[in-house]
Amino acid sequence: MSGRFTKVLADLAPMTPFVGPETLERRRGRPYKLRLGANESAFGPSPKVLAALEAAAGSASWYCDPEHFDLRSKLAAQLHVAVENLVIGEGIDGLLGLIVRAFVDPGAWVVTSAGAYPTFNYHVLGYGACLDFVPYTAAWENDPEALVERARARRAKLLYLANPDNPTGTFLGPAPVEALLDRLPENCLLVLDEAYAEFAPPEEILPIDAGDPRLIRLRTFSKAHGLAGLRVGYAIASRQIVAAFDRIRLHFGVGRLSQIAAAAALDDPDFAAGVVRQVAEGRRDYEVLANDLGLSTIPSLTNFVAIDLASAQAAERVAALLDENDVFVRRPGVPPLDRLVRVTVGTPTDRTALAPAFRAAFAALDGG
Amino acid sequence: MSGRFTKVLADLAPMTPFVGPETLERRRGRPYKLRLGANESAFGPSPKVLAALEAAAGSASWYCDPEHFDLRSKLAAQLHVAVENLVIGEGIDGLLGLIVRAFVDPGAWVVTSAGAYPTFNYHVLGYGACLDFVPYTAAWENDPEALVERARARRAKLLYLANPDNPTGTFLGPAPVEALLDRLPENCLLVLDEAYAEFAPPEEILPIDAGDPRLIRLRTFSKAHGLAGLRVGYAIASRQIVAAFDRIRLHFGVGRLSQIAAAAALDDPDFAAGVVRQVAEGRRDYEVLANDLGLSTIPSLTNFVAIDLASAQAAERVAALLDENDVFVRRPGVPPLDRLVRVTVGTPTDRTALAPAFRAAFAALDGG
Repeated sequence: MSGRFTKVLADLAPMTPFVGPETLERRRGRPYKLRLGANESAFGPSPKVLAALEAAAGSASWYCDPEHFDLRSKLAAQLHVAVENLVIGEGIDGLLGLIVRAFVDPGAWVVTSAGAYPTFNYHVLGYGACLDFVPYTAAWENDPEALVERARARRAKLLYLANPDNPTGTFLGPAPVEALLDRLPENCLLVLDEAYAEFAPPEEILPIDAGDPRLIRLRTFSKAHGLAGLRVGYAIASRQIVAAFDRIRLHFGVGRLSQIAAAAALDDPDFAAGVVRQVAEGRRDYEVLANDLGLSTIPSLTNFVAIDLASAQAAERVAALLDENDVFVRRPGVPPLDRLVRVTVGTPTDRTALAPAFRAAFAALDGG
Repeated sequence: MSGRFTKVLADLAPMTPFVGPETLERRRGRPYKLRLGANESAFGPSPKVLAALEAAAGSASWYCDPEHFDLRSKLAAQLHVAVENLVIGEGIDGLLGLIVRAFVDPGAWVVTSAGAYPTFNYHVLGYGACLDFVPYTAAWENDPEALVERARARRAKLLYLANPDNPTGTFLGPAPVEALLDRLPENCLLVLDEAYAEFAPPEEILPIDAGDPRLIRLRTFSKAHGLAGLRVGYAIASRQIVAAFDRIRLHFGVGRLSQIAAAAALDDPDFAAGVVRQVAEGRRDYEVLANDLGLSTIPSLTNFVAIDLASAQAAERVAALLDENDVFVRRPGVPPLDRLVRVTVGTPTDRTALAPAFRAAFAALDGG
């Protein structure tokens, strides 16, 4: 790299956190028939969102409100926090970049689970910081005690925890998360990625204490609300942290229609609740499908199910055969997660189409 | 600020690059009737864009293509550059942040005109770098020779130039820009912000040489294409620079519908050409209005006109009186630009409504 670039960028290796299905389709030369690899909502946006988008389309020529006031006000009322405890960003991805930029100097350390969210790691490396990893437990859960120990040893600035977790789907109730917070080293912040929070039982979610300076919670409109293509996430954090973000965030990053759509989604909680119910049904379908083949699944409180193929070779082969049959799924890349095939819950039609393709791929393992 | 934050953020003063009209409306307690302060397109998005948005709304639940392949391919064909010379970002604002992050280490210097784009300055300060300013010329033009001299003296990493310029509206033809490039110090990159390029005569725009490593050109769908609310900008740069951005950019920052809308806008060049023609008519209306009052305007090749009130006090008072009459305009904050009132070209109806409000505000100056 040229000497023109910053020291951090000049030393940075290329990294692509996710190769999108569109790129894979271009490489394959043909489209997927089933798109079940990106944990998008198969149930789409609410009809109220579509109506709001249609009504607002003509105002696409106006800039957005850089303070996101209407959206933050609705969120504040629903979450029982102050507007000043909320930051809107370009999805959780955008907020993760902002968090790393705000808290992690080049050369500082950050701790996460081995095989957790690649985009967080991408931002950490992109800002010149260092990553250390803690393995998942044998039950495919994040290991809060080991994470805290490692954060202490590394004097880490951030500890990343996705709960419910991606790519495993496992979930930690409030007690272990509270215990983690109580043992968190000073000057280490918990980044609690709750992208899939809507899919967990509300009473099992750590209660929100927006003034708690020890953590930032991240939520999104991409999953239960079905707005992944509009890029709206939010952070719940202390006023001091929100005020600091205001000094560096991209003020006009989340567009006008995205804000309007997200606010409309909040006005249709029944729709999101229906998605959560349908996703729970779909998870059961996947469990039955896997169990029929003698495979186990990881109990999931998300919109996907990780099926355990028992070996990386088997998982790689099943994923490849599904791909040949025009089914897009993901296989995590980091051992031991690479024995999993992660399948997003589709519509009933999607699931009916997936079953024979998955059975055929699994059957081909013996003859492969 | 707490010791948790990075050194850069801990030392950073609060700065708001633009207070949006929505914020001003909340402060005022009532909406504007004429929104002519943010250089948005009064002519809206193309009907083809609206049709594309409606057709694609149901796919808002899918993530975007993080490679922006379709949009970049269309741009590449129209601009006669390679796809690998193009980067899509969350408006020019997002790309400016990326550029500063990629090229400017904390403590390094950057040069721009005094009173030029505040959001660029916001990013420079936000990454811990230092700003130096060169005054506009007496003709309200950017001063390429003085900018280059200052860049050399400061060993600046970036030289920012908006052409056509905001907030003055002035334009430099290809000869002075080429002369600037030829004299640009080594390791200093020209950031050529061409947000308003569509409003300048095509033959007067510096020809595109995408392989030229000395500059990055920035364009947007926010102005002539009327998509400010969807946040899509693009950079034309060398392959090496584009590849470097791929290592740090927010891959999923520009949403699916935004990409689809921008691609649809490219399919309707006649619409954008019509906007450019109507804007030229509107500029003439503003010139006549100002000249009738004995005021001069700055010749503009943008979608706005800066009216010279001859003193900061007069400009402040006129802007305040317009605000009282529910007209949103901008007055630049940095002397000597603070004697200007910058008015976005509205529709014929907007212009008809503006004229008496502006005349009344000007008439009140004597009695004020």
